[in-house]
This record gives sequence, C-alpha cells and structure tokens, in this order.
Amino acid sequence: MSNTILKLGIFGFGCVGQGLHNVLSQTKGINATIEKICIKHPNKKRSLDASFFTTNPSDILDNPNIDVVVELIDDSDAAYHIVKEALIKGKAVVSANKKLIAEHLEELLFLQSKHETPLLYEGSVCGSIPIIRNLEEYYDNDLLSSVSGIFNGSTNYILSKMRHDGLDFEVALKEAQDKGFAESDPSLDVGGFDAKYKLCITLLHAFGLLVRPENILNIGIQNLSDQDVNYASQNNQNIKLVVHGQKQGQHISAFVIPTFVSADNPLTNVHNEFNGIVLESAFANQQFFGGKGAGSDPTGSAVLSDISALTYGYKYEYKKLHQNTVVTYSTKQLLEVYVRYQDKNAVQWADFESINQRFESKSYNYVIGTVYLEQLLQEEWALNPTISIVLKSIVGEAIHDVAEQNKDAVLESA
Amino acid sequence: MSNTILKLGIFGFGCVGQGLHNVLSQTKGINATIEKICIKHPNKKRSLDASFFTTNPSDILDNPNIDVVVELIDDSDAAYHIVKEALIKGKAVVSANKKLIAEHLEELLFLQSKHETPLLYEGSVCGSIPIIRNLEEYYDNDLLSSVSGIFNGSTNYILSKMRHDGLDFEVALKEAQDKGFAESDPSLDVGGFDAKYKLCITLLHAFGLLVRPENILNIGIQNLSDQDVNYASQNNQNIKLVVHGQKQGQHISAFVIPTFVSADNPLTNVHNEFNGIVLESAFANQQFFGGKGAGSDPTGSAVLSDISALTYGYKYEYKKLHQNTVVTYSTKQLLEVYVRYQDKNAVQWADFESINQRFESKSYNYVIGTVYLEQLLQEEWALNPTISIVLKSIVGEAIHDVAEQNKDAVLESA
Repeated sequence: MSNTILKLGIFGFGCVGQGLHNVLSQTKGINATIEKICIKHPNKKRSLDASFFTTNPSDILDNPNIDVVVELIDDSDAAYHIVKEALIKGKAVVSANKKLIAEHLEELLFLQSKHETPLLYEGSVCGSIPIIRNLEEYYDNDLLSSVSGIFNGSTNYILSKMRHDGLDFEVALKEAQDKGFAESDPSLDVGGFDAKYKLCITLLHAFGLLVRPENILNIGIQNLSDQDVNYASQNNQNIKLVVHGQKQGQHISAFVIPTFVSADNPLTNVHNEFNGIVLESAFANQQFFGGKGAGSDPTGSAVLSDISALTYGYKYEYKKLHQNTVVTYSTKQLLEVYVRYQDKNAVQWADFESINQRFESKSYNYVIGTVYLEQLLQEEWALNPTISIVLKSIVGEAIHDVAEQNKDAVLESA
Repeated sequence: MSNTILKLGIFGFGCVGQGLHNVLSQTKGINATIEKICIKHPNKKRSLDASFFTTNPSDILDNPNIDVVVELIDDSDAAYHIVKEALIKGKAVVSANKKLIAEHLEELLFLQSKHETPLLYEGSVCGSIPIIRNLEEYYDNDLLSSVSGIFNGSTNYILSKMRHDGLDFEVALKEAQDKGFAESDPSLDVGGFDAKYKLCITLLHAFGLLVRPENILNIGIQNLSDQDVNYASQNNQNIKLVVHGQKQGQHISAFVIPTFVSADNPLTNVHNEFNGIVLESAFANQQFFGGKGAGSDPTGSAVLSDISALTYGYKYEYKKLHQNTVVTYSTKQLLEVYVRYQDKNAVQWADFESINQRFESKSYNYVIGTVYLEQLLQEEWALNPTISIVLKSIVGEAIHDVAEQNKDAVLESA
C-alpha cells in the first residue's frame, strides 16, 4: 500500500468535478488533492479560488507536479486529444467518456502499454456499478458465458414511464432530459449508441474481445409505440433496451436491441434511470448488479473509486485479451424477434429463417420470426421508423414457447 | 500475470468438490490442477481414480508439491485445524466456511501475515456474489456508509414461502432443507447465526472493523408468525432477515434482525434462496448485488474464482484495517421496532425510549417503539419465543412516518 499523495489535474468543472472536489476536501481516506482545473469559460462564477483554474490545457498536461489527469468534459473529440496527450506524457488518466473510449479502444490499449501508464474508466459503463473492475478481476477466467444488461438510464427512464405511467415516447423523453439523464444529443441514447459504446468496453473486459462500435447492431427505442408496450404487458413482460454479449465456444455475439424481459429476469426490476447487469458464469450461476447509471453523482462515485485505485497502483491488466484462448466476433446468431410493421412491403421477408406467428388487423400487424443477427445488421429496413423490432429470445439459448405465450395477445388485439 | 500451474489439495469431495473437479478438467482458463483429495469415507464409490484420494490430511498438508489447500468440509472445528495448519505450512488456502472464519478472524489475519501466505474466502459470504472482493478492492476508501443485505438463503426461502405461498414456518423450513439450502443444523440459519458470521467477515472488509460474533445482536426468524407477515403485507412491505452494518462518523453499529422492507429497497425483490446486498457510498449512491447465496453451485463458483485469483498472486490486503482512521464498534444505536407479544409482562418495557403505537386485541398485540441496540443485546426477553421483533427503521438514518404507515393495519387488525 503506497502512501504517495496523488496530484490531480481536472478537465471540466461541472457537477461531477465540483462533487469530486467536495468529497476529496471532506475525506482523509483518499490520498489525492486537486492541483489544477482546466475550464472553458474563465468568467463563470466558481466556488473555488481563481488560482485553481486555468484555460490552458498545457498547465495540466505539461505540469510535472500533476500525476493524474481526470477528464470530465462533454465533448468526446476534445476529450480524446486530452486523454491521448496525457497518456503520451506518462500521466495516469481517469475518464468516464464511453464514446471516446469505445471508439479508440485499440489505440488506448497501445498507449497505456507503450507509455506504461494506466487509464481507468469505471464510470464509463453503468455509472457507479463496478462492472469493469469485476469483469477484470473477479471473472478473470474463461468461465463467463453471458453479459446482458440495461446500460442506458435515459432510455430505461423513458420505457419505464411509457409502461407504468402510460406516457408517450416524446413526453417521456422530455422528462428524462429535464431530469438530466439524457445525453445532450438524445439520438445517442434513444438510438442505442450510448449503450453500444458501453457494450464495446464491456466486451473487452468480459471476453477479451476488441470490436469496433460500427460492427455491432444497435436498434434503439425510437420506433417503439404503445402497441408494443401493450403487447409486452399482455404477456407479463417489460420491454427494456438490453445489451447482449454471448459466448458460445470461442464465438462472441453482441448487439443492442429492445428486448422482452420476463418476471424471472432481474432486469425486469430495473426501473427509471437505474442500470443493471446480469452475468452468467460457471456452474450455471447468475449474478446481478444494479445501481444508478445516469447522472453526475453515480459518475462522480465511479471516478472517485478510480482515483482511489490509482493511489494503490491499480491498472487494468486486460487479462482476457492476453489469455491464450482466442475469441472471435460472430454475427451468425439466430434471433427470435417480434416485428411490428405498417406496410408489409417495408420488411424484407426473405431475411427471415422462419415466421412462427403472424397477426394482422387494420391498425396493428406483427410477426414473430427468426432472423440472423448478420441480416439485421446489413439491412436498412430494420431501422425504418414505421417498423419496430423487439427481441423475444436468443435461439439456442432460451427458446420460449411462443405459441402459448402469445395466444392471449393475439386474441385481445384482434 | 504468472503462468505457474497451481497444485491443489482438496479437503472434502461433496457437491462443491466434485463440481470443482469437473470445471477444472473442462476448462483451460485456470492454471490449476487437483493433486490430492482428502476424504473421510474411503469406501464410498467415487467418480475419480482411487489414486486421487487419501484419508490422511498429512498427504496434503505435508506434501511439498501442493501449493493451495481448498477446504470444503462441513465441520467447522475440523476445518479450523486444517486451515490453520495449512497457513502455518505456508500454503495458500481457499475456504467458504463462514463460521470458522468469523470465529477466528483475528488469528487468521495474524497467520496470513506471519507466514506470508493468503487465505481467500469469497464463498463464505453470499455464495457467488463477489462482495468481499468488491469491498476490498472497489470501495477501498472511507466513503462507504452502509452495508445491508439478505445473507442467508435458507431463511429467505422460508420467508418467501410464508409470504407468497402462505406456508407455515415449519413447512417452509422442511422445504428449504429438502432443497439443500439449509445448514445441517437449522438453528444456525433460522436463529440468524449464519447471517451474523457473514456480517462479521463483511464488517472487516467494509469498514476495517474486527468484532467477535458474540458481541453482535442476532434475532432470527423462528418467532415470526403469519400475523407478522400479514402486518407487513398490509403495509405493502416484506419481512426479510437483514444484516445491517452502519457507519456514523467513526462508529460502526451492526446487527442481524428481521426487517420490514419497502418496495423502494432492492432487497424486496430478493426471493427464495437468493441473496442480495445494498451498499451506500459517497455521493449518496446506492449499489445492489444479487445472486444465489445458498447451494453448492454458487459456492463452487466463488471457490473457483478464489483459485483463479491465486493464480494471479491475489491476496486480501485488509486495506481498511490498515488505514489510519480508527473505527469503533458501537451498540448505542437507536432502533424503531415492531414488537408482537402474547403476555404483556414478558416484555421489559423499561428498555424502550418511546412507545409510539400500541395495538391490543384478543389474539394479537403489538407495539411500535424505539429501543437502543445495546438493550436488545443484553435482554433475554428479546429471544422469548412468544415475542417477535421486526425492525422498522434505524433512527437517525431513515425515520418513516410511522403513524401514517400503520393506520390501515391497525384498523384492519382491530
């Protein structure tokens, strides 16, 4: 256990930065002090003495007294340049910027290794839930078979309000934005991109898999309607935007998709802005982690834990990446999906392996069928705004008795 | 990352031991092989070649080829001697025996330090949920304020069956035993001792506190009746056997007690043999961990993760114990409790700081009042079989509006 006191240089002084300062000044448990804070707007009124602040990044990046750069800014491109330069200059870095990390994962691995300095980013996935550290340290063997979860608080808030308060999508989105759960660009949330960035990071620590975000399917919640939500209710299920990472042999499949979640899945109890993760491991064992995934406090809490870890010399070892078992990314995964459509011709029916159910009426049409992940990834129709797609099951994992389950829904909708 | 292959000597070859063997022989991810297995009954039919087995502990303990002793036997006294001797002989040890560990925690710390060899025991608390490792590694600062949880699968199974299936205590206990969730001596479970041992271990890793089990209050579920369960239902609550560890300033209070759990507490969704833990940390943040807590598979999964951690040279550093902030155990914690009684004279009313509600009828009497933890710890009446005690709130933490909450119950019971 080291007794060095870390000197921090912080980029950004919004809610997270201010909370971090408060906690560090109140507690003696963490051997870290804030040396300098780089801000954009020097004329804003601040709670700290002006001597703390600078607008010149070089006052942190080129300051030999500063050991750790804490990156807390919104702009992922600017953040990328800061993080990269900090690593090159041999400083340890803490960031919670999932977009930056997911998009530059391979380079960031290389920079950490080359400059022998750590980058920690627990706050980038599921806020304060210590999922990265657990995947890295506790599940550090090849016995993990599946990771699934609700990784985006904003969309989960919207879906909770649609289901439980009967709100429309637009109204619920507005509420999430007002409460500060949504990204400044809401399409990142509702389109499933934010969840996908987090999934990318998770796949590396869960399975040792490096995959580019653009190669992962993300179907968001923007096309879901009350018809879909009602269909789920009638089947005693919830629709959640779920990230899936599945290992079968040495093949990993991964995707983000609205998913019907039953009462026996712990994710069904994850409401509003909360996040949750289900891990399936050896001995057919299942663990669940839950906590707040969105907002400045959960992020602050995770950033704080990363700083604390640095005081003990912690770094990610990327154990699974360096294990001798080679895993490959595969999109040859058969999925059973519910597809609601307005115009029958808008769906590419040839993509389906089977159609197991079809319901048609004046106002509401759907099919239940099976389709390969790679088809959904390639085809434009999957993102058509008049079509909604919800996962029923991952075929080969857990095929439900579809006919039985939907009988009532068909009867009631007819 | 080391590439040494660990040689394991295992004591006990029940479900966990056999599962462990299966997993280790199937996977190449963990650099560990089983060298020898010490058993009690040499004539039992075994799935492995006879050359694996011995009845002589010395074949493991004095075997210089064996690096790690995995202790998987039921008898905690015998286990204690094995673990102690193994540590003295410089071998790393994995155990899931909470009674042994909780009762000898101080000595086990000393032995690890003196002989510079690790003892890991993730499986001793909440089965496969990685709570010890998380407390040790992730919450390694003084910002954790509270740990609470359902730490005993058997009592949680019983309470779930009483609440949801209307079973009697005795019938539900029998079911738990038949399913293999209960300890061989059921009083350890139902009396809250098993949960208390786990709490002891947790307090060390959560707060750096060493406290003897006999100094911690444990009120079990053996006195709970359907009247108590109904009272909870009428208030939209569940009764759960909850362990509590609370930090206020440098004082830690800890106790095991049946507790009313509301819908906003994640523990309310922990059913049957599942366990769950709620941590409250900096930034008023809450995390929840859930998973199976009882049965051989979850234990096997945790033991496996400990073995895997040893291949990377992992050991507990007991960081919080060695932090310079000194914490003290305190029983001066005011609790708001529901007390059901048959004979008014059986309760020591002078112990109470206040009585906020009293309900009396021919068949059902209760009070809601406040009492100090130290009083409950000292007094015999708290364990009287005609008296049941359920925690409503920890005063100073979250005082509910008692009058409002119970109005309906009083009216309905009258």
